[in-house]
Amino acid sequence: MAGALCFERVALVGKPNAAGSGATLARVVDFLHAQGCEVTLEHDTAQHVGALGDRVADVAGIGAHCQLALVVGGDGTMLGIGRRLAPWGVPLIGINQGRLGFITDIPFDGFEAVLRPMLCGAYLEERRALLQAGVWRDGHCEFDTIAMNDVVVNRGGAPSMVELRVEVDGHFVANMRADGLIIASPTGSTAYALSAGGPLLHPAIDGWVMVPIAPHTLSNRPVVLPASSTIAIEVVAARDPSAHFDMQTFTSLLEGDRIVVRRSQHVLRLLHPLGWNYFDTLRGKLHWNEGVVA
Amino acid sequence: MAGALCFERVALVGKPNAAGSGATLARVVDFLHAQGCEVTLEHDTAQHVGALGDRVADVAGIGAHCQLALVVGGDGTMLGIGRRLAPWGVPLIGINQGRLGFITDIPFDGFEAVLRPMLCGAYLEERRALLQAGVWRDGHCEFDTIAMNDVVVNRGGAPSMVELRVEVDGHFVANMRADGLIIASPTGSTAYALSAGGPLLHPAIDGWVMVPIAPHTLSNRPVVLPASSTIAIEVVAARDPSAHFDMQTFTSLLEGDRIVVRRSQHVLRLLHPLGWNYFDTLRGKLHWNEGVVA
Amino acid sequence: MAGALCFERVALVGKPNAAGSGATLARVVDFLHAQGCEVTLEHDTAQHVGALGDRVADVAGIGAHCQLALVVGGDGTMLGIGRRLAPWGVPLIGINQGRLGFITDIPFDGFEAVLRPMLCGAYLEERRALLQAGVWRDGHCEFDTIAMNDVVVNRGGAPSMVELRVEVDGHFVANMRADGLIIASPTGSTAYALSAGGPLLHPAIDGWVMVPIAPHTLSNRPVVLPASSTIAIEVVAARDPSAHFDMQTFTSLLEGDRIVVRRSQHVLRLLHPLGWNYFDTLRGKLHWNEGVVA
Amino acid sequence: MAGALCFERVALVGKPNAAGSGATLARVVDFLHAQGCEVTLEHDTAQHVGALGDRVADVAGIGAHCQLALVVGGDGTMLGIGRRLAPWGVPLIGINQGRLGFITDIPFDGFEAVLRPMLCGAYLEERRALLQAGVWRDGHCEFDTIAMNDVVVNRGGAPSMVELRVEVDGHFVANMRADGLIIASPTGSTAYALSAGGPLLHPAIDGWVMVPIAPHTLSNRPVVLPASSTIAIEVVAARDPSAHFDMQTFTSLLEGDRIVVRRSQHVLRLLHPLGWNYFDTLRGKLHWNEGVVA
Repeated sequence: MAGALCFERVALVGKPNAAGSGATLARVVDFLHAQGCEVTLEHDTAQHVGALGDRVADVAGIGAHCQLALVVGGDGTMLGIGRRLAPWGVPLIGINQGRLGFITDIPFDGFEAVLRPMLCGAYLEERRALLQAGVWRDGHCEFDTIAMNDVVVNRGGAPSMVELRVEVDGHFVANMRADGLIIASPTGSTAYALSAGGPLLHPAIDGWVMVPIAPHTLSNRPVVLPASSTIAIEVVAARDPSAHFDMQTFTSLLEGDRIVVRRSQHVLRLLHPLGWNYFDTLRGKLHWNEGVVA
Repeated sequence: MAGALCFERVALVGKPNAAGSGATLARVVDFLHAQGCEVTLEHDTAQHVGALGDRVADVAGIGAHCQLALVVGGDGTMLGIGRRLAPWGVPLIGINQGRLGFITDIPFDGFEAVLRPMLCGAYLEERRALLQAGVWRDGHCEFDTIAMNDVVVNRGGAPSMVELRVEVDGHFVANMRADGLIIASPTGSTAYALSAGGPLLHPAIDGWVMVPIAPHTLSNRPVVLPASSTIAIEVVAARDPSAHFDMQTFTSLLEGDRIVVRRSQHVLRLLHPLGWNYFDTLRGKLHWNEGVVA
Repeated sequence: MAGALCFERVALVGKPNAAGSGATLARVVDFLHAQGCEVTLEHDTAQHVGALGDRVADVAGIGAHCQLALVVGGDGTMLGIGRRLAPWGVPLIGINQGRLGFITDIPFDGFEAVLRPMLCGAYLEERRALLQAGVWRDGHCEFDTIAMNDVVVNRGGAPSMVELRVEVDGHFVANMRADGLIIASPTGSTAYALSAGGPLLHPAIDGWVMVPIAPHTLSNRPVVLPASSTIAIEVVAARDPSAHFDMQTFTSLLEGDRIVVRRSQHVLRLLHPLGWNYFDTLRGKLHWNEGVVA
Repeated sequence: MAGALCFERVALVGKPNAAGSGATLARVVDFLHAQGCEVTLEHDTAQHVGALGDRVADVAGIGAHCQLALVVGGDGTMLGIGRRLAPWGVPLIGINQGRLGFITDIPFDGFEAVLRPMLCGAYLEERRALLQAGVWRDGHCEFDTIAMNDVVVNRGGAPSMVELRVEVDGHFVANMRADGLIIASPTGSTAYALSAGGPLLHPAIDGWVMVPIAPHTLSNRPVVLPASSTIAIEVVAARDPSAHFDMQTFTSLLEGDRIVVRRSQHVLRLLHPLGWNYFDTLRGKLHWNEGVVA
């Protein structure tokens, strides 16, 4: 069924700080070589596992050169690399050594049989929207980045709430007093936003969910907002508040700072094996249909 | 400011079964006449308040003849008429005598000053998606209708859950055991779905929210699904289950019946005064920003 | 540790309507005989499995004669028999053929090794409070019963809420509009009340939790009330409302009817193997600590 | 109805840092003098409002000398002083200048008519349980205090969860990964615990509610635990975690530290006017029965 190779130049990305994953990655390299692929090892990964594959490159180098990135790790690994590769439009495939993740959905055991047809073009492509977020102070942008899962503005360690003023497209929405506020993409709706009481958003939903964390006002419920809107969160009052963009933290927020969230012009391109379905992943990860309470 | 009259043939709809609302409606008729409008009184309304305006017509007659429908009542009144008028594309304006509703947002006191410019074209138009739903049995459609707020499949009065099998676009999602399941439009997301723990959906979101009611499995959380999808809910096991489409009930559900939900080809056209904003309504109705606990 | 037999006259209760459980029960009878026990088979169980053991008796007969009841089934089986045996003070042990329940905590596989010391006095006894509930109309009690899990007042199959007026010890608490209202014991806090959003109550808590089901008012949160209080729920408005006491239903509720809930003078006596702990059961049933999302 | 004066030596406590409340307190002093009371002004209050009343004393001095403490402020003011006065058994009355609080339930306007009979013995006394909490490290108690509302162990400003191991009376309950964990008294159940999804506990409930904040595991629901139990929360993993006891913070928590919570031997004695009822306060504060959504 397969046919000709579609992806000749493949990047390989491992877990950050994962000493001892060399043998695992070497097996992937061997497989890719056998398929006729050239393999570029991601720079940070190379720091941990040494020389593997044909070349080493940083994210920009991968973006400029590679046609596909294979990520071997969990959703957290994908979170780190996916956001950074998005501007180059390189599609990603996630291989998971442990329990399957929401987006790293190919088990390491037997990955070869699953990858072989994908490399020859037999795959499903899914495009996930990304958040573009900036911290604005006195009319200047202090920080600007892309997030795959969520943007969070929250309190520091002190036992006091933050007060945040939310505007959408310039319209006042609410002043919220809470532990914090999450703006999550569909991809991030299964992460922190879910713990804080948010709904699941199907990846095809062109929207973000805004979830207050432990809000003082009980009717401050999660709101699903259009991804085409511009969401501005102003810090009205807080002690040591910070903003988080996936794993990246901006800690020195001041009162009056505005965190502005938009849809990124880039998307995350995820490749799945044929037959993959979002609901299968959801059902498996959330343990639906196991006849159990939880 | 306004200029020429945009809506010459206006329908007037009152609360069902609202004896004693004649004086209220008469005031609206007088105002419309003064603006130069012809007034068609909705048939059921006429049953309660007697002769008012220039003509009486049923929903089909209104649809064929009128350019605008003025609804005087609450969100429930709008729910009844909006769904039925949608196939004719007649836009609606809601005037509320009591507390303002989510979609009946013009107070009766002083309605004249608000309506005058709207009749001359100074308004915001909002298009709300509608649910098209049917009950299928053995390959036949037993019932088919449009709903503005929600489609609900739930148990009868017996103290036992329903078991429902959900499919989206032919993909198995989950078997759910619960009191019931709600598929709500953005408009309906502020109604029953909110009570059952669902999020708010901005009207521009092209999706429905699926909310299980008191689900047995704690991880059966609300899911926002694309409005372009086809959602099928099969009754696996239940005692006296029924399906509800806004206020309309289909009571004789059998095991194996499938309730199929799609986006209607029709939309609800709501007209608001200039300056109207969704978030103002939400903030007011949910008592955000009042510095209170609830 | 073992010593002399503590329970000589043991009742055996199986699942209602469980044809084909004869072999299972026969194995329990053999074991009990081998320990020197006389075995009384519960009457309904005997209808399904035929002659087993030494005697057959109904609940009253078991209450008058037996020192212990062995229940072979799930929590539902225990729910049916426990409430009815409570007035006689007969302690119960639950053996479960399938997945362990919250209160049927001895696996059938290898039950002999677990039961042997228990029959000789090596057990933990736990006393669970029971709800005494009645339906009052025009000053008369129309129905009166004991419930182990919960008392529920809810709507019928119609798509309309009930309106209930709640008083505690004669003090007005709230008018609630909702799908219904649950008063759950600590035992019942892991059942329907949990699905409806209630907290878990440790069995030693001398209280009930009142949980509204899909309440219209978002601040109508679960309330934990003293078990020493008298809770009265008056039906203010509803279509076809009913009240449920565990599995027993009272369907012909009228507006003005009052469901009055108190602590029963009886308790449920549950016997557990030494080493049993409530939190182990909770952790297992709710899948805590499995490193998973759900 | 009133009779002789019951409280001759009354302490007066104002808001901390509330400059400008001198006139308010002076009016209370005048009233108390008119009733024949001696007035002791709390030391910190005196720092802000200057000389008022007959004496100034710190908390210990008030505890040793006064028969009653009048607190003029909100629930936060009561939170600060109530906990510290509890060891002396001095009862408190709360007068509120703004919106009434959960425990400061006498409006300033017209306080005289309400207080007069109370000073002569016409009052309801309510006893609220207090939390005794300590931080233990390597077998030593590093910090020990009383809390009226809650004990909270939570993460710092970093975007990572804490992992906490919970034991009750030496039994393992669960390892929880969350933003944090709240142990709230009935008094505290209307505060932070409510925002985090906990139930309301009637003050007569002899228990605490344990509420996880944004827990990773969706089945980690609030649990109501007996107040007679000893709850130990061990920090398994966290970045900059801290513990909070009402407003007091212990910031230098290390992995392995244990926060141990018990019922204090002291209670908070609150005096209310005759006719006061807990449910009236709850209904008012939570806006039940206002016919509104929120």
